[in-house]
Amino acid sequence: MKDVVVLGVGMTEFGKHYDKGVKELGEEAIYKAIKDANIDSKDIQVAYCGSALAGITNRQAGVVGQLALKEVGINKIPVTRVENACASGSCAFHEAWISVVSGLYDVAIAVGIEKMSGAKTSEFVEALAMQTDVQVECDQGYTFPGHFALVARKHMHEFGTTREQLSMVSVKNHKNGAKNPNSQYKKVLSLDEVSNSRMISDPLRLLDCCPNSDGAAAAIVATKEIAKSLTNKPIYVASSVLASGSYLKPSLVTLEVTERAAKEAYQKANIRPEDIDLAEVHDAFTINEILHYEDLGFCKKGYGGRFIEEGQAEIDGKVAINPSGGLLSKGHPVGATGIAQICEIVWQLREEAGDRQVANARIGLAHCTGGFTHGDIGAGCITILRSN
Amino acid sequence: MKDVVVLGVGMTEFGKHYDKGVKELGEEAIYKAIKDANIDSKDIQVAYCGSALAGITNRQAGVVGQLALKEVGINKIPVTRVENACASGSCAFHEAWISVVSGLYDVAIAVGIEKMSGAKTSEFVEALAMQTDVQVECDQGYTFPGHFALVARKHMHEFGTTREQLSMVSVKNHKNGAKNPNSQYKKVLSLDEVSNSRMISDPLRLLDCCPNSDGAAAAIVATKEIAKSLTNKPIYVASSVLASGSYLKPSLVTLEVTERAAKEAYQKANIRPEDIDLAEVHDAFTINEILHYEDLGFCKKGYGGRFIEEGQAEIDGKVAINPSGGLLSKGHPVGATGIAQICEIVWQLREEAGDRQVANARIGLAHCTGGFTHGDIGAGCITILRSN
Repeated sequence: MKDVVVLGVGMTEFGKHYDKGVKELGEEAIYKAIKDANIDSKDIQVAYCGSALAGITNRQAGVVGQLALKEVGINKIPVTRVENACASGSCAFHEAWISVVSGLYDVAIAVGIEKMSGAKTSEFVEALAMQTDVQVECDQGYTFPGHFALVARKHMHEFGTTREQLSMVSVKNHKNGAKNPNSQYKKVLSLDEVSNSRMISDPLRLLDCCPNSDGAAAAIVATKEIAKSLTNKPIYVASSVLASGSYLKPSLVTLEVTERAAKEAYQKANIRPEDIDLAEVHDAFTINEILHYEDLGFCKKGYGGRFIEEGQAEIDGKVAINPSGGLLSKGHPVGATGIAQICEIVWQLREEAGDRQVANARIGLAHCTGGFTHGDIGAGCITILRSN
Repeated sequence: MKDVVVLGVGMTEFGKHYDKGVKELGEEAIYKAIKDANIDSKDIQVAYCGSALAGITNRQAGVVGQLALKEVGINKIPVTRVENACASGSCAFHEAWISVVSGLYDVAIAVGIEKMSGAKTSEFVEALAMQTDVQVECDQGYTFPGHFALVARKHMHEFGTTREQLSMVSVKNHKNGAKNPNSQYKKVLSLDEVSNSRMISDPLRLLDCCPNSDGAAAAIVATKEIAKSLTNKPIYVASSVLASGSYLKPSLVTLEVTERAAKEAYQKANIRPEDIDLAEVHDAFTINEILHYEDLGFCKKGYGGRFIEEGQAEIDGKVAINPSGGLLSKGHPVGATGIAQICEIVWQLREEAGDRQVANARIGLAHCTGGFTHGDIGAGCITILRSN
């Protein structure tokens, strides 16, 4: 097992890029990551590209990674697209990490690209619904907003979680996102604006939900030996874990797959949840972030509402959660999200995060889930990075 | 680097399975592979699923692998879908091989699943066209049949390849496929039937083209140590190579990506093309198989037409090419094809191929290409297996 370092990262601004396709989005992120890594494009030996909705919202159904990489002159190496619904980008990073940690390659790139604008609303609503078990959930209309609305109701019922606490998640993430030049939304919101926004699936309102976005992100990983001559701020991959499992067991308010993957990731990194300084988590809806506080071990089950209310998830709180703005504010170009999380953690650990810098950040965690639900078919991916 | 053994394989019959979805198709192949491997489903530690058209022809856009694996009780391990257009199945096998050769896992499964029937003709025509560079080739109508028709014309012009030689490829593969219980077509064809079939893209006729298919295939790989107690007929992975590159360079009649990937695969397996006893190659169109004879080094460039005419590609020829029937006769459920090639080679090397058995088969090669074309964005994947 080799020591793996994140050598460079780069991303596009997330948002509506009506004038750009997957090639142009990918090219920008890859170019920035190569420049940040201080290497030549020819040094990259293998590539993985995360893209979930390829062909459904953007018509480019195949070989997305090759297309984007070719724009920066990379065209002979192994390139593979990987998909795990919303965790597609995380999985691309995981595979790039495998290729280096295993000793098979010295330098690998993970790219995440998604293009959603341009598709009709019905197309991307369907594309997202088709990340479930289509024969069961999609056909019943049991889609993500509906599911997580049930989860929110159950969490409120069991643990007294309030409407205001849900809103606080959105307010915090928009506050952070407003300081992030790569965010789709750079607008501070009030509690009232969130609590009174348009109803989507009771109790979830518009500003409880992440937006549809276009964007790309890239991360280059390499062996410690390679990194030595290229950077004096190496960021190490302490662990990378992918698991499959349930969103529903042992109950509606626990993402078992997150809990299990996190446990394994902490163990492999030889740390405890208390050691995490910041975490980029999968806040597709506000209630999800509250679950993640609990399932990642930052607080006890049921205490997620209090965790946000007490300010513990703020940039200067116990664990800075989604200092980038998260999916809610930064945006959610599905396949790019997991790698954009890696970008944010790298910037934070290098102390390059500007106005949203987490003080003394040494260890960061990235977390994405993907897929659905009744049948143990969700993916959970966790990466822990550290600066020393 | 660990020695990797193919422990077990399984596949569905290829064809039109109107009554089955990706879950049912995948389940059958996985169940057969587990049974063949003589292991328990719980022994499998990691899974890769190849599926190219997920969501476009079958609506199941995400987490295809998890869905199928869950049907046989596999639900906690890392599962990742991989896509590389027509080489998606080959890439799933490649990733499973990486996970074991690297020492990270002891037992891995590669699954390939594709469901095309049920989609409207316009949907799967578009799905296949979208495996190109959509902004350039698809929008110009420069799709696969059109491209390979040009290639055929050029090959005829430069090397004197004839209409009859194209037909001979289809006749041979249907003759082989008729002996394969898993084939979509089990019908022997005459030269005249092929040469006079309906024109698709001049000079390619209907029986020069592979069909649309449903199907699934699975292969389980493990370390040599694990295999020792489970089988007395171990089939070794001598090499597995994935490359990106061009379909067009240095000319229209060479798949540079195949040539380069093959060279690397031979070198890593420490063999020469002359050592190959059988090869399953990517005969999407008859002309492609002729190119592959040349680019894989079985004959000189330009001699592919003669190679088939002289009977050198027959089961009792110099190299048995597509003893399974290939894509032309066995069928082409895109993401399943690469793994079905592995199935055939394993059966041949174990001498379990019945009426289509290649005598004294010791070394076999599987070959798939995927994606398109002008911009060096094709994938080429080669696997070499040997029985000792």
